[in-house]
Amino acid sequence: MTREPLPPGSTIGILGGGQLGRMLAQAAAKLGFRACVLSPEPDSPAFAVSAAHICAAYDDAEALKRLAGEADVVTFEFENVSAQALALLEGAALVAPPRVALEVTQDRLAEKRFLDTLGLPTAPYATVENASALAGAAEALRGSADQDAFFLKLARQGYDGKGQFKIKSAEDISKAQAWLANTNAVLEQAVAFEMELSVVAVRGGDGAMLFYDVPQNIHRDGVLRESIVPAPIPESVRREAQSYARRIAGALDYVGVLAVELFLLRQEGGLRLLVNEIAPRVHNSGHWTLEACAVSQFENHIRAVAGWPLGATWRHSDARMVNLLGKDVEDALTLLREDPARSLHLYGKHEARDGRKMGHYVELRPAAVKPRM
Amino acid sequence: MTREPLPPGSTIGILGGGQLGRMLAQAAAKLGFRACVLSPEPDSPAFAVSAAHICAAYDDAEALKRLAGEADVVTFEFENVSAQALALLEGAALVAPPRVALEVTQDRLAEKRFLDTLGLPTAPYATVENASALAGAAEALRGSADQDAFFLKLARQGYDGKGQFKIKSAEDISKAQAWLANTNAVLEQAVAFEMELSVVAVRGGDGAMLFYDVPQNIHRDGVLRESIVPAPIPESVRREAQSYARRIAGALDYVGVLAVELFLLRQEGGLRLLVNEIAPRVHNSGHWTLEACAVSQFENHIRAVAGWPLGATWRHSDARMVNLLGKDVEDALTLLREDPARSLHLYGKHEARDGRKMGHYVELRPAAVKPRM
Repeated sequence: MTREPLPPGSTIGILGGGQLGRMLAQAAAKLGFRACVLSPEPDSPAFAVSAAHICAAYDDAEALKRLAGEADVVTFEFENVSAQALALLEGAALVAPPRVALEVTQDRLAEKRFLDTLGLPTAPYATVENASALAGAAEALRGSADQDAFFLKLARQGYDGKGQFKIKSAEDISKAQAWLANTNAVLEQAVAFEMELSVVAVRGGDGAMLFYDVPQNIHRDGVLRESIVPAPIPESVRREAQSYARRIAGALDYVGVLAVELFLLRQEGGLRLLVNEIAPRVHNSGHWTLEACAVSQFENHIRAVAGWPLGATWRHSDARMVNLLGKDVEDALTLLREDPARSLHLYGKHEARDGRKMGHYVELRPAAVKPRM
Repeated sequence: MTREPLPPGSTIGILGGGQLGRMLAQAAAKLGFRACVLSPEPDSPAFAVSAAHICAAYDDAEALKRLAGEADVVTFEFENVSAQALALLEGAALVAPPRVALEVTQDRLAEKRFLDTLGLPTAPYATVENASALAGAAEALRGSADQDAFFLKLARQGYDGKGQFKIKSAEDISKAQAWLANTNAVLEQAVAFEMELSVVAVRGGDGAMLFYDVPQNIHRDGVLRESIVPAPIPESVRREAQSYARRIAGALDYVGVLAVELFLLRQEGGLRLLVNEIAPRVHNSGHWTLEACAVSQFENHIRAVAGWPLGATWRHSDARMVNLLGKDVEDALTLLREDPARSLHLYGKHEARDGRKMGHYVELRPAAVKPRM
């Protein structure tokens, strides 16, 4: 997708109006673009910072056509875009990232096979067609395992630990069967990792690719809590992680920001990386780039899909990003009082439901190692 | 003005919808506030990034009451707010910065007298009631001057070099008289400065005050072109400049971000500072704080007027801000291509009129001196 850059004042269509859509819309406005956001909730966080919005369901054909008609390019805050919606949008507008990136990542099975094709390492897994196939799959996988725990993950619609079932015992298997019923799933060996990492990178339409520094990510209950840069890893691991993202993005002829989540394992031969998941979008583990880099993941995503030159991804400061979930948000002012170098983002969500991502903050520190441009 | 902090989700009213209002609205949204902007132009830059807006004249009483009714606090992107508008707003809402700060700074005579009262140095000046008093004022001022050039500045409504007339000769005086007619003005001796500087600082309702680093400012034709941090000045000058801003803000019982523009002179006794102008608002010479500081001038202004804790103002990187005036904006993509560490802001203005501020960019470099927190 090499093409003429969009002129300033063009409209960036964004499917999805949550916090990622909000920060994408803010980045678009920074560059002088109009943002037009489609989202079903009338109080979508992105609406309040966008020049225009369309409040409609993601499968509303008329609304999708309107979005495509208004926008000079359409992009996404999430990967679970239906094939029909994609076809509609592609028929009427430029779309980025490309369809194949959404198709591969919205289905865990397709994603695993894609990674296999590229020869990239993942945790041992087996496909599970439905509940009755589960026990056999577990048996087969257990043969190769040095431990005995699994994640059963629905092939579709999983995020933030949703759509997952942890299996630690024989009884869990029958519970998991009831939970799974007739749905397609992937059974994954639970790996004893040392650390979780992610690569957030941006690829332009001309194939040029830039990488942000690799954060260490800390999850609880399947939800990201903290991202820390620099991660305490050797340079060789950082480079290897980034090389995985390069291969993934290249194979998808990707345009925009993409994140690859990884496990770091300590094994007899040394450190080893496994690919956990690909996200074809800006990513929670890259929020610190707004504070700690010359050009953030949000701005670079907009630059890429608009055909603009990519911006510098070097990190000028050390940073720690902490998500505010549910009632955490009530402590926001105390958190600012405790440390003036905390940069707060609240998403404008009204209801602080348990576990809901309400905001985040980024703590900035002078870089311990002098920044490399 | 010590009071309870506004809860997240509160509404920040902003009078003025240009680029400063726009960046204030974006900072408000970042913190989870709703921004409601009042501005007369239907395509005001701030409207596209605000949850709500009121398109009305600045002296429209009904509109001002609506703004005050919607907002939990009202603030300003400019100082030329009429006494009537201020009275209306104050009657119905919290207002920050305080009225006296606007009154003092919207009238050059009042501002000079205020600075005199504080014992802060300014360029020699004389008040000029009208055209007929000009020649005498020039004569009196010339007596004390080692040079022979003046600026005649209208007492009210001047900004970006507008409302000024440069006098270099006797003929200029008669031209200036025709230009001035019956208006109040200040005649200022044109000082041969070494450098222009500014202090951008924030003061909370509790009197706590934080300072950004002092930029060197480069003007052409009275309009700011570049701001550079660090400025090539000794630490003692930086501290003295900041102490001036502290006295000014203290005397005004100021709340919010305030800028003080200064001239640095090299005289026989060494370096000397003169106060040029006070701006009771976020300032063009502080735009680099978005890229180079943990918390920007815009966010700190919103934090201050909302009664929130102030954020860290230390500078993690060296920076150079360059304004894009008029057709400069056509080179935006070339500028990004030339240096990926340029962070671009376009204000979404449609018409690139000569000299109009269309956007700016900030070049970031790793700090030559390790940042002090």
